[in-house]
Amino acid sequence: MVNNHLQVSDLGERKLIERIIEKLKNSYNDSKEGFLNDKWNDFYIGDDSALIKLNNDYYNLNNNDNYLVATSDMLIEKSHFPKQMSYFQIGKKAVTVNVSDLAAMGAKPIGILINLAIPKKLKLSYFDELIDGILDACSYYKIPLVGGDTNQSDEIIISGTALGEVKKEKTLFKHGFGDGDLIAITDKIGLAALGFEIFNSQISTKLIKKSLVNHEIDRNIVDLAIQKVLNPIAKINEGMILSYFASSATDITDGLASELYELCNSNKNKNPNSKLGMIIYENKLPFLDEITKISKILKKNPLNLILHTGEDFELLFTINKDNLEKLYELNKIKKNKFDFFDFYIIGEINNKNKVEIKHINGSVKELSSKGYEHLVNNKLVEVRNDYED
Amino acid sequence: MVNNHLQVSDLGERKLIERIIEKLKNSYNDSKEGFLNDKWNDFYIGDDSALIKLNNDYYNLNNNDNYLVATSDMLIEKSHFPKQMSYFQIGKKAVTVNVSDLAAMGAKPIGILINLAIPKKLKLSYFDELIDGILDACSYYKIPLVGGDTNQSDEIIISGTALGEVKKEKTLFKHGFGDGDLIAITDKIGLAALGFEIFNSQISTKLIKKSLVNHEIDRNIVDLAIQKVLNPIAKINEGMILSYFASSATDITDGLASELYELCNSNKNKNPNSKLGMIIYENKLPFLDEITKISKILKKNPLNLILHTGEDFELLFTINKDNLEKLYELNKIKKNKFDFFDFYIIGEINNKNKVEIKHINGSVKELSSKGYEHLVNNKLVEVRNDYED
Repeated sequence: MVNNHLQVSDLGERKLIERIIEKLKNSYNDSKEGFLNDKWNDFYIGDDSALIKLNNDYYNLNNNDNYLVATSDMLIEKSHFPKQMSYFQIGKKAVTVNVSDLAAMGAKPIGILINLAIPKKLKLSYFDELIDGILDACSYYKIPLVGGDTNQSDEIIISGTALGEVKKEKTLFKHGFGDGDLIAITDKIGLAALGFEIFNSQISTKLIKKSLVNHEIDRNIVDLAIQKVLNPIAKINEGMILSYFASSATDITDGLASELYELCNSNKNKNPNSKLGMIIYENKLPFLDEITKISKILKKNPLNLILHTGEDFELLFTINKDNLEKLYELNKIKKNKFDFFDFYIIGEINNKNKVEIKHINGSVKELSSKGYEHLVNNKLVEVRNDYED
Repeated sequence: MVNNHLQVSDLGERKLIERIIEKLKNSYNDSKEGFLNDKWNDFYIGDDSALIKLNNDYYNLNNNDNYLVATSDMLIEKSHFPKQMSYFQIGKKAVTVNVSDLAAMGAKPIGILINLAIPKKLKLSYFDELIDGILDACSYYKIPLVGGDTNQSDEIIISGTALGEVKKEKTLFKHGFGDGDLIAITDKIGLAALGFEIFNSQISTKLIKKSLVNHEIDRNIVDLAIQKVLNPIAKINEGMILSYFASSATDITDGLASELYELCNSNKNKNPNSKLGMIIYENKLPFLDEITKISKILKKNPLNLILHTGEDFELLFTINKDNLEKLYELNKIKKNKFDFFDFYIIGEINNKNKVEIKHINGSVKELSSKGYEHLVNNKLVEVRNDYED
């Protein structure tokens, strides 16, 4: 048990790093099917850089058949962590957002580096929670923590870099789809957007509490929405399976509409003369009915939440009809090696050179590309204030 | 020419990233012997993750003979960037600190990811300078920028992750030295420490200016010290050469004494019963005479600056006597493939289980391990204030 009055500055950088390495060792020892088996012994920490052995037993291939995959995302307290999030959850999310980008490429995780910046006055017990959250997520995604550093700043900043590998011809790019391919997502969406709306202001929170008391809405759904915000999960296994079937993929972090445009723009960059476009169907968008009800209470347009707010971390992918049949087959068989997963067809690739949505009333309209963007005038969440004077 | 009144928030995240990619393309086209040759074409950016082909033409080896090397460092304005540093220099330093850790392992750079956090009110022209500095350093170190993201924060934060590869049996660890090995550094030290002292307070700056006017000190040396702070350089070629000769290495970032203990502690961790220790000789420490003179003006102990302040980015290494002869030979031949470089023997490994210094007066004392440390009560530099209201 940590003395609750200790702050991180009572230890200093070196002791904090020793503390992380100690926790790291325990986390590997605790994890029965994770870090102790051979696959997770192939790295070395504690020197100027991490060393990683690329051994490819997963693919049974020569190294030259694989790409090294590297992705890096920074999370900053004021933009990314609602004050309702615990330090444990902050740590988990920092790993999740980086792993999600590996999932979007169909890659297998091989290691993650985490750079932390924390306020001097942060309680040591919170620091420990944060590290525990990071290590818990590493264990969940089977991605060893191989490096990083700690620094001092006015708010919590976590910068992660996830490394993975992927079979060259199986890599999931944002481009690669063809005319007639179907557009799909790995789960229902909109819950994260709803969760952020609930957290967004005290007014929203009050409205929801009142509706819960009056039994106008289902408490389970509200809890689910909040969980989607507090404990997001990257679809790493789904990405690895989809690498064998999908023609393109990305993760939904800035909203479905924005990501559809990402795929289209990537295709245009690769094939400037391409006329490939997309149509999605409002009546095929998978979301819980309760979202409509709760959106009304919050005076929000549910379709807007579903299309233009992100943080779902589901995978958006395209797939040709033959491979779709094979994926359905695989899901039926539920092979031991892979987990079964649901997915929803929401539209298709056509040659109309536009991104459109067919509404329930039959009208077809061009989709707005609006999505969440940093460094413009927006504020996603209310922030905590645990270490000011 | 950028409108000088534009702030980064006038563009937003997406346009800023497009701007970086545009600059990136130009930087590759401009660089005749860098990014356009085959070695630097082996990566792909613009998707969820960067893809890197590991092709090993440098070592002429199978991939399985190499380690992937990964290192990550975060720089934060208030701790790492004196206000005298331009945005261009800030960008360069962010790359340098990460490349320096590759150098310390003897690794060849293969790619770098940079996560940026910047204040919304930062002038766009400063943003451009920052990116130009990053790309200039990437070109200098022949390390392609392969990924990263941008975010919003109250001060400038740059988190980099450098990737490299190294032949397994040539990796330079912090451990690996044996009894009788010599201890050496790749250049004179102390100038960076002096530079930080000059920047450290207005009083120091005034004292130096006065001494310059009175011709008491050499303007060239003061300039050199300032350059060491503003434009540090990582010893990446030296690291790759040393990987064939040295028995261990690290880069001097937190001060020579602190790094000597790093090597010793690494050896202890690897070989708990080892009695290996170190002795360095004050009369062999390579530094310019002027440092003593300037230190006196600043009322500082020069030995303290040389031993206990970092940011030199020189390599500290150990080498056995046979390999030392070979390295001298190589330096004489100045093979085309490698550049000649100076180095200085400062001490040796013994079996006394201590880290000692033999002073000029003949006394031998245990060396203090004091070095620069984050998250304790210290302040390295005065900070800029370009974007407050």
